[in-house]
Amino acid sequence: MPGPEAPLERREFSWPELEPGAILLRTLGSEVCGTDTHLWKGQLAGVPYPIIPGHVSVGRIAALGPADATGKVPEDVSGAPLEVGQVVTFLDVYGTCGRCWYCTVGHATTRCPARKVYGVTLSADDGLLGGWAEYIHLRPGVHVIPLPDELDWRAFLSGGCGMPTALHAVTLGEIAFGDTVVIQGAGPVGQCAAVLAQLRGAGSVIVIGGPKARLDAATRFGADAVIDIGTTTPAARHAAILEATGGRGADVTIEATGVPSAVPEGMRLTRDAGRYVVVGQYTNAGEAAFNPHLDLNQKHLDIRGCWGSDVGHMYRAVQVMARYRRQFPWTDLISREYGLDEAQTALEDVAAQRVVKALIVP
Amino acid sequence: MPGPEAPLERREFSWPELEPGAILLRTLGSEVCGTDTHLWKGQLAGVPYPIIPGHVSVGRIAALGPADATGKVPEDVSGAPLEVGQVVTFLDVYGTCGRCWYCTVGHATTRCPARKVYGVTLSADDGLLGGWAEYIHLRPGVHVIPLPDELDWRAFLSGGCGMPTALHAVTLGEIAFGDTVVIQGAGPVGQCAAVLAQLRGAGSVIVIGGPKARLDAATRFGADAVIDIGTTTPAARHAAILEATGGRGADVTIEATGVPSAVPEGMRLTRDAGRYVVVGQYTNAGEAAFNPHLDLNQKHLDIRGCWGSDVGHMYRAVQVMARYRRQFPWTDLISREYGLDEAQTALEDVAAQRVVKALIVP
Amino acid sequence: MPGPEAPLERREFSWPELEPGAILLRTLGSEVCGTDTHLWKGQLAGVPYPIIPGHVSVGRIAALGPADATGKVPEDVSGAPLEVGQVVTFLDVYGTCGRCWYCTVGHATTRCPARKVYGVTLSADDGLLGGWAEYIHLRPGVHVIPLPDELDWRAFLSGGCGMPTALHAVTLGEIAFGDTVVIQGAGPVGQCAAVLAQLRGAGSVIVIGGPKARLDAATRFGADAVIDIGTTTPAARHAAILEATGGRGADVTIEATGVPSAVPEGMRLTRDAGRYVVVGQYTNAGEAAFNPHLDLNQKHLDIRGCWGSDVGHMYRAVQVMARYRRQFPWTDLISREYGLDEAQTALEDVAAQRVVKALIVP
Amino acid sequence: MPGPEAPLERREFSWPELEPGAILLRTLGSEVCGTDTHLWKGQLAGVPYPIIPGHVSVGRIAALGPADATGKVPEDVSGAPLEVGQVVTFLDVYGTCGRCWYCTVGHATTRCPARKVYGVTLSADDGLLGGWAEYIHLRPGVHVIPLPDELDWRAFLSGGCGMPTALHAVTLGEIAFGDTVVIQGAGPVGQCAAVLAQLRGAGSVIVIGGPKARLDAATRFGADAVIDIGTTTPAARHAAILEATGGRGADVTIEATGVPSAVPEGMRLTRDAGRYVVVGQYTNAGEAAFNPHLDLNQKHLDIRGCWGSDVGHMYRAVQVMARYRRQFPWTDLISREYGLDEAQTALEDVAAQRVVKALIVP
Repeated sequence: MPGPEAPLERREFSWPELEPGAILLRTLGSEVCGTDTHLWKGQLAGVPYPIIPGHVSVGRIAALGPADATGKVPEDVSGAPLEVGQVVTFLDVYGTCGRCWYCTVGHATTRCPARKVYGVTLSADDGLLGGWAEYIHLRPGVHVIPLPDELDWRAFLSGGCGMPTALHAVTLGEIAFGDTVVIQGAGPVGQCAAVLAQLRGAGSVIVIGGPKARLDAATRFGADAVIDIGTTTPAARHAAILEATGGRGADVTIEATGVPSAVPEGMRLTRDAGRYVVVGQYTNAGEAAFNPHLDLNQKHLDIRGCWGSDVGHMYRAVQVMARYRRQFPWTDLISREYGLDEAQTALEDVAAQRVVKALIVP
Repeated sequence: MPGPEAPLERREFSWPELEPGAILLRTLGSEVCGTDTHLWKGQLAGVPYPIIPGHVSVGRIAALGPADATGKVPEDVSGAPLEVGQVVTFLDVYGTCGRCWYCTVGHATTRCPARKVYGVTLSADDGLLGGWAEYIHLRPGVHVIPLPDELDWRAFLSGGCGMPTALHAVTLGEIAFGDTVVIQGAGPVGQCAAVLAQLRGAGSVIVIGGPKARLDAATRFGADAVIDIGTTTPAARHAAILEATGGRGADVTIEATGVPSAVPEGMRLTRDAGRYVVVGQYTNAGEAAFNPHLDLNQKHLDIRGCWGSDVGHMYRAVQVMARYRRQFPWTDLISREYGLDEAQTALEDVAAQRVVKALIVP
Repeated sequence: MPGPEAPLERREFSWPELEPGAILLRTLGSEVCGTDTHLWKGQLAGVPYPIIPGHVSVGRIAALGPADATGKVPEDVSGAPLEVGQVVTFLDVYGTCGRCWYCTVGHATTRCPARKVYGVTLSADDGLLGGWAEYIHLRPGVHVIPLPDELDWRAFLSGGCGMPTALHAVTLGEIAFGDTVVIQGAGPVGQCAAVLAQLRGAGSVIVIGGPKARLDAATRFGADAVIDIGTTTPAARHAAILEATGGRGADVTIEATGVPSAVPEGMRLTRDAGRYVVVGQYTNAGEAAFNPHLDLNQKHLDIRGCWGSDVGHMYRAVQVMARYRRQFPWTDLISREYGLDEAQTALEDVAAQRVVKALIVP
Repeated sequence: MPGPEAPLERREFSWPELEPGAILLRTLGSEVCGTDTHLWKGQLAGVPYPIIPGHVSVGRIAALGPADATGKVPEDVSGAPLEVGQVVTFLDVYGTCGRCWYCTVGHATTRCPARKVYGVTLSADDGLLGGWAEYIHLRPGVHVIPLPDELDWRAFLSGGCGMPTALHAVTLGEIAFGDTVVIQGAGPVGQCAAVLAQLRGAGSVIVIGGPKARLDAATRFGADAVIDIGTTTPAARHAAILEATGGRGADVTIEATGVPSAVPEGMRLTRDAGRYVVVGQYTNAGEAAFNPHLDLNQKHLDIRGCWGSDVGHMYRAVQVMARYRRQFPWTDLISREYGLDEAQTALEDVAAQRVVKALIVP
């Protein structure tokens, strides 16, 4: 991706020299996600174009760098030595410093200013630092997570970065057994949140979104009800949620839409003393108005903004997808696979919401 | 149950006069649980024999008392008026005062000194206050929860009081997605905890207990592994759990055994900075020794004693059992149903662990 | 208070007949708070005028009703029997049902629909149910809290309802040791929050508000810095908070202003992954606009609406005010005392912010 | 300290060569703590004798290493560049990896296996890696915290490592406003915990310990009551705590004794549904017996083992000690200062509990 709005190009790279602790992956697949469309449209600040897109990827270890000065070889997150041939994923966030105020005192690692992201804020000028490529160069310190044998790599990628993101959001939602959970948005994050809510013992999961193909997917993955934003008004949606909850509203609502006006709507869909997680406002799309008395203070509402993922979210996403693979046929979420030369088409299909999840398979 | 160790007797009661706000249930079924065997053996203090055992029960509303002085008719927990013919359960705990220090300041309602329990601390001399009877008299203020149409009453009773108890314990366990959860004990509370751990997104659920029939049930209900206490030493069990967790130990362990020595064992099965919930030490069975440095302080361990259930646990248990009835065939947990005249046999079968869950069906 | 905007009147009541469990207090003092000015201006819905204002009050027990049917005499929150001559306060919220969904399942007692409030939603037509009176009739079930001997009743009233309200808000704020805490608002709730933040070990407490007399009071009570809203712009205030926090923003911000635009401002004053408690939006004063991406999602912000107080907040407020009375000279917060006949003046002085805290002393 | 039980020796070191990112401190002072007596008696495993004791120290920056490969100069925890002449402390724990399972997934950095501790698990053979020395060599990556101008370095050291340790424990205790807090132990950790409990708004702080000099110090620092273990039985102490709490027991108890039998005693001193933090069992001193039914399960007790400190605890300790220096005259805790040649005497005085806090001032 040479720059905003510019057509994707295929480039050749010289074979990377692996520093101590580094790893070279032969890419098996890499997801196409909404962020990639934002990158392409130039909606994110601080992106060092040209970049190789693709932040959540799976590969087979092709080569390991030498041991470091202390004799240490590359290890996975659990401390097991990595071996050539293993199928692994890795956290796209790289370089979290572990030393700044946010990393140490604030315990808010997703706000560490040093963090860089494969496929987003690392430049192609610096090497194979994105997933839409035949090989990926994992620098020393990248967090590597092996896929369990029973978890097919396509199954893992069908969640893409939506799965750790949703896992973070659903965790913040602190869903109690039997809660009614409303999900705003039926894209990958919303779909994953709807599944994960069931894996927190929700009593009822209601997905509000569109278009119909995405709502159908939500239903196949267990949503108790879906509401199509294309055919309903906010008032009708509010009435439907009250109707479904004895007049109280959702116990927990999770926003995954990207539309500012969804946020005050979500406050109103949530019951008094309920919880509202806002995870979908990834880009600046403007302001929204709300009533602090009615929508927040008198409601005794708990609202949580949710930004980014850390190693734990990715690690846990892998474990959950492996464990519940029979209950949720993950690969059904994949609408289409694209070769490297079709990456431009993939981007356009995702931007047009023609697919639920698209993969690049080099 | 006229008194400790005395044979059960069948007694006739006069037709109860319903005070304002009271309800008369025609009993559909009532569980037999470990507490009933403790009652029969006289192992609980302060029991006002004779009693009618049976604390978790389901019935059909046969009659409603008159409206109270303010014109209010009996309502369910959600505030909906109750009607003759509805199938309901109710919280056995009655009379939580809502005014004492524990109810108000301490927010620990299960430690309210005023609370009485149907089938345990309410005497048969005061009426039909237990479930092993054709009718149950619900006094004004008893918390009533309707069963959703899709939840068969037998399915609900197959969890019995084990389900809200386990729901309380699993909630305190704060299981994170992908956690390895070890359950000590394969009785009703352990079985329910093993199911509920899966409904919190556990990465792996391991049940330690016996005998084999109970472990087989745990496996059918989704446990990833079982360990038979009859054929293993504590050291072997410890080794097995370390083996299953990369040498770390369980992220969350839930004790549901009643055996004091299980508690220090459980501390050791749990990883550093993990969480251990102790819910099974319902009667005083003596002391246990542990090493405060190794087992608690250096481990940075979090241990939570869990006592009793409140309305929320029962309400949520009903919602969860209804929602996930297809995934977990609850009625498989029921080994046998007994008529009122077979109650003595039921008690003996439960005491001998010949059954997983026994029901009295009057 | 016969009705909105109508002049206060002094009325005579017949001597109340005490039902079992009831208590008659000889009023020592009762606070005048912002809510009373809202009542007088008719800004609250559902008020059964005429009312006797005064929701937080202190009195000496003049008479106790007879024991109830179970032989129980009136007790305080800790379960100790009350005696004639004791100096007590009581929770103005009365009639929380302990049975509805919010009381039982939701654990959100401040959202119980049955709750009534002395001096606000209880009518003078029903008796001496407010504090601006020589006597107060505490109905059976009112939660009574004795004042410790070492806590002068004037000292307790100097916090008024602001103290339990602030205690609730500061508790929700989960202040960590050394945190920078920003308080928006210098009225009674803000003043109390600024004190309580110091009793959570805040590293720095900054009060934003006015007028100068209130900011001076905040300084005397230990605020590390004050910012006058009368002489600063939002941008200047933002810059000042960043300057004071190494560019990060407040760890915890507590809103106690009543002004809608303060809410988006408070979001921006709070650091990434910080916490923002909104307690001051007690009446509907319109909408405010915010940017969901910048102010909430990317900030990873935690926002908590805080409504009402329960027994625990009032009980704890009494303990804290007694324990730290030497460190904080509470009575300094009282600007003036008024007799019953001066109640109208008191209302006007409070409405005009001419006083920090006003008391009615009948 | 050449080895266990061997007399301390004074050694000369060659002037250290500072690697990029390293810092050389001219030592102002270093504490002597119970850990140092454990080191001297050989009670800790894995200590690479010879060592330079002294893990919590203050120094003035004498020299800074060169910038690292990325041009980065040494910074403090807040990201500000450090300068020669600044007075700083630093976290003794060094080398927390930020990459292992405990650092990333478990969020339990104090259980990271890679962590080393200045003055404890770093050898004198490797340089000036302890505080009882004229200079201290801070390796790249050591977390440095400047002391605010208003906080005298002696005042900071009077808390020593007891302050961040107690801050961690008190944080885990989640003290609510007005709680009764019992502290078991009157050594440095206990003293600091008693102070910090007051900075959480405790309603009453009771210290159980000895000898009298330490209890007197606790009283001077604000403890509401003290109980001398030298003149009381466990039963008498239990009775005293019940008497002080309306028969309920402590809301929160914090153990800081090192004596195993204190742990079951502490469980019993805590009320039903209370919280018990065990921080003092730093070495293996054997087992203790408890009753899982009475002491844990029926009590609904929450027990938290607390191990080690991280950067946040140390950073927050500095902020709190600076902010509340007028309320708590920290330096009163220091009983005596010793020169480097008197270190042996200092160790013996601490071992014999002849002092509250001893400093080495080189």
